[in-house]
Amino acid sequence: MKKVEDYIISIPDFPKPGILFRDVTGITNSGEGLKLALDELYALIKEDEYDLIAGAESRGFIFGTPLSYLAEKPFVPVRKKGKLPRETVSADYALEYGTATIEIHKDAIKPGDKVILIDDLLATGGTMEAAARLVEELGGEVVKMIFVIELVDLKGREKLSKYKVESLVQYEGE
Amino acid sequence: MKKVEDYIISIPDFPKPGILFRDVTGITNSGEGLKLALDELYALIKEDEYDLIAGAESRGFIFGTPLSYLAEKPFVPVRKKGKLPRETVSADYALEYGTATIEIHKDAIKPGDKVILIDDLLATGGTMEAAARLVEELGGEVVKMIFVIELVDLKGREKLSKYKVESLVQYEGE
Repeated sequence: MKKVEDYIISIPDFPKPGILFRDVTGITNSGEGLKLALDELYALIKEDEYDLIAGAESRGFIFGTPLSYLAEKPFVPVRKKGKLPRETVSADYALEYGTATIEIHKDAIKPGDKVILIDDLLATGGTMEAAARLVEELGGEVVKMIFVIELVDLKGREKLSKYKVESLVQYEGE
Repeated sequence: MKKVEDYIISIPDFPKPGILFRDVTGITNSGEGLKLALDELYALIKEDEYDLIAGAESRGFIFGTPLSYLAEKPFVPVRKKGKLPRETVSADYALEYGTATIEIHKDAIKPGDKVILIDDLLATGGTMEAAARLVEELGGEVVKMIFVIELVDLKGREKLSKYKVESLVQYEGE
């Protein structure tokens, strides 16, 4: 029986030389792979109490919304600056060169809300750390962060050491 | 009982003066709203035979992937230029000023595949018409195009007259 990692495609030198890109479209391109990954992600949070799931643009949308559907909980999109039409809170995070900004609608999270954060990939953890700051700025609590893939050598877990972090597939020693 | 349209938030002057933006995050911000919209979208295709669902970045991901999960069929992301890591086909479409380019992985659609296309919003139909061209370039067949919202006055259905088009909520005479 195939495992989630069997569906991940590894692509050398994308988006630039020296990077081995782990491509989740190998999962989404398969009905069985997609169902398997989503069922395993949902299992990671089945014992948790939470009010909503928030996912980062745009691959976090792919894996997050089906979990919201299953749980009958809101899905809150974490988007790049300028994409959300109503009042937002925003946070910067570091890129290799410069910074990027993400936003959440102010009315999407209420004080006391318990939040699951999801993204496809945990690399350095910068995006997720910024997303967690937004949740907390609105008075929410991050219950858990879940990922399909974790690149262990990039030490995202250290940056996210305040939080519970779980992933389906880990790559290390690369 | 609330209907899907009751969850849509209308925002004047976004992204620029004179535009009344129909915001689907009012749907996603509600567990009940999200489930209702997804169940109604799924009902639109329940009699159709299809091999996969393809959705446009990035709100098409939100509504498309849960349907793929329910159907146990692949979800194929239609992305902006440069985002997909493997070999792609690409198509241009007109914006108000200039053009934009979308892409699909070449191996995501095989000749003869029957495809459901999904996006959150049907406006002029430019993105979806370009997405359909990509499906057809790869030998696929567009079975149906489905949308949460249709802005009837922008005549997207005319541009997409070759295709079956269905939407959950229609706005017209604005």
